[in-house]
Amino acid sequence: MFEAAELGQSISKRQYDVAAPKLRTALLEAHFALSKTKIPVIVIVSGADGAGKGEVVHRLNEWLDPRGVETHSFWQVYEEERERPPYWRFWRVLPPRGRIGVLFGSWYTAPIIDRVYGKIKNGRLDSELDRIAFFEKMLADDGALIVKFWFHIAKKAQKQMLTKLEADPRTRSRVIAADWKHYKLYDKFTRISERAIRRTDAGHAPWHIIEAADRRFRELTAGRILLKSITERLRAAPVSKSAPVEPPPMERGGKNILDRVDLGQKLSERDYRDQVAEAQGRLTELTWAASRKKVSVVALFEGWDAAGKGSAIRRVTAAVDPRLYHIVSVAAPTDEERAHHYFWRFWRHLPRAGRMLIFDRSWYGRVLVERVEGFARPDEWKRAYLEINDFEEQLATYGIVVAKFWIHISKEEQLRRFRERETTPYKRHKITAEDWRNRKRWGAYKDAVNDMVAHTSTGNAPWTLVAGNDKKFARVQILKTLCASLEAAL
Amino acid sequence: MFEAAELGQSISKRQYDVAAPKLRTALLEAHFALSKTKIPVIVIVSGADGAGKGEVVHRLNEWLDPRGVETHSFWQVYEEERERPPYWRFWRVLPPRGRIGVLFGSWYTAPIIDRVYGKIKNGRLDSELDRIAFFEKMLADDGALIVKFWFHIAKKAQKQMLTKLEADPRTRSRVIAADWKHYKLYDKFTRISERAIRRTDAGHAPWHIIEAADRRFRELTAGRILLKSITERLRAAPVSKSAPVEPPPMERGGKNILDRVDLGQKLSERDYRDQVAEAQGRLTELTWAASRKKVSVVALFEGWDAAGKGSAIRRVTAAVDPRLYHIVSVAAPTDEERAHHYFWRFWRHLPRAGRMLIFDRSWYGRVLVERVEGFARPDEWKRAYLEINDFEEQLATYGIVVAKFWIHISKEEQLRRFRERETTPYKRHKITAEDWRNRKRWGAYKDAVNDMVAHTSTGNAPWTLVAGNDKKFARVQILKTLCASLEAAL
Repeated sequence: MFEAAELGQSISKRQYDVAAPKLRTALLEAHFALSKTKIPVIVIVSGADGAGKGEVVHRLNEWLDPRGVETHSFWQVYEEERERPPYWRFWRVLPPRGRIGVLFGSWYTAPIIDRVYGKIKNGRLDSELDRIAFFEKMLADDGALIVKFWFHIAKKAQKQMLTKLEADPRTRSRVIAADWKHYKLYDKFTRISERAIRRTDAGHAPWHIIEAADRRFRELTAGRILLKSITERLRAAPVSKSAPVEPPPMERGGKNILDRVDLGQKLSERDYRDQVAEAQGRLTELTWAASRKKVSVVALFEGWDAAGKGSAIRRVTAAVDPRLYHIVSVAAPTDEERAHHYFWRFWRHLPRAGRMLIFDRSWYGRVLVERVEGFARPDEWKRAYLEINDFEEQLATYGIVVAKFWIHISKEEQLRRFRERETTPYKRHKITAEDWRNRKRWGAYKDAVNDMVAHTSTGNAPWTLVAGNDKKFARVQILKTLCASLEAAL
Repeated sequence: MFEAAELGQSISKRQYDVAAPKLRTALLEAHFALSKTKIPVIVIVSGADGAGKGEVVHRLNEWLDPRGVETHSFWQVYEEERERPPYWRFWRVLPPRGRIGVLFGSWYTAPIIDRVYGKIKNGRLDSELDRIAFFEKMLADDGALIVKFWFHIAKKAQKQMLTKLEADPRTRSRVIAADWKHYKLYDKFTRISERAIRRTDAGHAPWHIIEAADRRFRELTAGRILLKSITERLRAAPVSKSAPVEPPPMERGGKNILDRVDLGQKLSERDYRDQVAEAQGRLTELTWAASRKKVSVVALFEGWDAAGKGSAIRRVTAAVDPRLYHIVSVAAPTDEERAHHYFWRFWRHLPRAGRMLIFDRSWYGRVLVERVEGFARPDEWKRAYLEINDFEEQLATYGIVVAKFWIHISKEEQLRRFRERETTPYKRHKITAEDWRNRKRWGAYKDAVNDMVAHTSTGNAPWTLVAGNDKKFARVQILKTLCASLEAAL
C-alpha cells in the first residue's frame, strides 16, 4: 500500500514558487464559497513521525482563510476528557457547518498506537476501526466532507528527518523521546497503519496517502487534494443524501408493545408513601456511592404529553444531592447546535464521572416527534436507530448506567389530564395547542414508540415502559428501576 | 446583622400546606413570564453549614419549571478550571437570558472560606469582595436579576442540625468532616460572612438574610423573596439602564496618539528576512518554554481594515507549534453568545495553561466599531473600559501574558491596499462595501482608538501601536514585542 508513496517524488523550488500562489488563490476562493454552505469539512492529518505533519498543518492554515479554519490537536487526554466516553473529546471540536476543522491527530491515533505498543489486540483494533467507520459515515450522512491525509515516509527517510530536526535548534524541541521509540517500531507501525487505512477507506471518507519526504511535494499535494475535494463537493448536491437505511421489518401482527403495559396497576396512598420514601432513601445512598466510584448515570424520560415526566423527574431529583445531578430539557436547538450533527447537542452535555444527567426528552425525538411530524427526512430518522444504539453503547462501554423511561398512559387518561391542566391555574401554561395536535396522531406515535423500543431496547440500555395512569405507581416504578440499575452497576 | 435571623421564626405544617401550593402557582406563572424576557436570573444560595441550603435548592427546583432552571454547584475545582483564571468557572455556568440559574455555592465561597482558614488576610478579602461587587454590577448592568440568599442559623442550632443529619441514615452522608470543622470556627465564620455581606449588599444585587432553623420558614421565605424579586423586575423596564459611566475626560488638545506612530519606519527585504527568522526562532523556543511552565498568552490584533492583521497573525503562528495555539476570529455572536453578557463569548475561549490564544479582533469591538457605528448604547461602551480593564487584570493576575496590537496605517496606504485587493483575485473577497463605509469614518475611529489606548493601556496589558505602512516592519515589531513579553514573564 505504501509503495506508491516511496517513489522519490519531489517538486523543485521554482515549480513550487509558481504553483503555490495559484493553489492558494484557488483554495481561498473555494474556502470562501464553502463558507456560504452547510458543509462542515473535516481534514485529518496523520501519518508517520517526522513526516512533516506539523508543517502541513501550518501551511494549510497559511493558505486558508484563518476566519474559517480551526486546528485541533489531540496531544494529551485531559481530566475532563478522561471522565467521559473517549469520543467526547472529538465531538467537542467537530467543525460547524461552513467551516474547516484541521485535526492534527484524530480518532485513529489511539487505536493505532495502542496496537503498536501491544496494549490491544487485533480484535479490539478492528472493533475500534469499525466504530470509526460508523462515526465517519454518520458525519458524512449529515453532510460533512471528510478528507483524510496519511503522510508516509520510508524508514530510512524517517531516520534522516528526525536526525535533521534534532540538529536544528529551532526544531529540536519538536522531537520527543516517543518519536525515536516509534522509529524502532517502524515496521509494526506501518503494518498496523495499513490495516487501519484499509478498513476505513470509504468513498465518503477516503484516505489520501501522500509521499512526505519532500516538503514542497507533500504540501502542494495536500493542498491540491483538499482543493479538489472541496471543489467537487461544492459542485455536487448541497447535502449528501445516503440511501435510506431501512430498519429491519418488525412482525407486529397488529399488536403494539404498549398494549402489554398493564395500566391498571396502582398504589394506595399509604403504600406509595412508604415505597417512595424507601426507594428515595436507597437512591440517595446509591448516588453518593456512584459518585465515590465515579459511575455516572444517564437517565432519559420520554412519554405521552401529560404522562407525568416532570413530576416523575422531581421525585428522582428529590433524592439526589443537587451537586450530583443536572437536568437537560430538550427544546429547539440553538444555532450552534444546528451547525453540528444532530447528536452533538447531546454529547456536549455528558457529565463528568460520578454524576447523574437527566434528559427531559432526548435524542429519541428523532424517531418520535421528528418522524411523526416529518421534521426529519425518512433516511435521517431511519438511520437514527443505529446512531442511537452506537451512542448508547459508547456510554455503556464507558461504564455509564443508561436508564430510559417511556411513561405510558391511556388516551382517556391523557384527555382527563389535559382538561385538568386547563382548569388548574399553575398548570395552564403546560397545555398548548400543540399538545392537542399531537394527540390527534396518537396512532402514529404509538407505532413510532413500538419501533423505537424494538430497535433500541438493548442489554446496554434497556427501555422501561412505565405504567403511568396511576402517577404514584409510575413514580415508584421509576425510582425502583433506577435503584436496581445502579445496584447492578456498583 | 444576623440577630434578626435568630428570632425563632417558624411556620406550622398547616400554614405551610396552605401557603406552599399558592406560592408554587405564583412562582410558575412568574417563571413562565420571565422566560419570554431577556432577563437572566442568578440566585445565589449561601450561608452556614447545616442551614438546609441543599433542601432549599431542592425545593426551588421543585417549585420552578425544570425546563427553565439550572442548578450549578461549586463543589470542587476541576483541572480545566484550575488552568484558567478563577472566574472562568463562574462565567461558564451563568444562566442565559430568560432562565434561572441557581448557584449552590458561588464566587463568595472561596474568599470567605480562605479568610476563615487564615489563608488570606482582610486586605485580600476586601479586594476579592470588590471584584465581586464589580462583577455583579456588570451582570446587573447587562440586565441580570441577582437574588442573593444567606441562610443563617445560630451556633446552637447548627450543632443540633449536624447531629440530627448524622443520626439519620438517609442524610448521614451529607455531613462531611469539614462541616464539623466549620462549626468550631462558627464565630469567625459569622464575623467574616458579615463583612462579605456588608460590602456587597448593593441595590442591584441585594442580600436576603433568612432565618434557617425552621425548614418550612426558610423555604417559604426564600420562595417568596424570589417571587417578589421576579415580579417587581417584570413590572420594571425590560432592561435596566444604569446611568452612563462617563470615562474620565481626556486632554487631547487636538492631538491623537496615532499621530505619534512613525509610519516611515521600514525594513529592507534582507533585514526583514534575517530579523523575522531570528524572532520566529526565539518565539518557537519561548512558546515551548511557556508550555512547560504553564504560562498562557492571550494576543489580540486590532487595526484598520487592510492593516495586515491576518498576515501578521500568520507570521506569528508560523513560529508556534499548532498544538500550542488557537485562533479565534471574532465575528457576529451566535445566539448562545447573545443570550449572555458581552464578555461571555471571550471568557469561553480562554485556553488551558501553557497555550497561546490569538484573537483576530476582540472585545475592543465594543469601544471601536460598536461605539462608532452605534451598535452599543453610550452607557454600554462607556462602561466597557472598566469591564475590559477588569477582565485583562484577571488574566494578568493569573499569570497570562496579555499582548495587544493596534496595527496603524495611513489613510493613503489603506486606499492603496483596498485598490490592490480589488485587483488581486484571491484577495477580492477580503474587500467589501463595509470596508469602504468604515473608511469614511476614519476620524471617528481614530478618536475611538485614542480613547481606547488612553483608558486600557495598562501595566498588566499594554497596547503596542504597530507602524503598519511597511508590512515587513510591522511583522517584525509584533514578533519582537511578543518575544519580549514572553521573556519578561518566564
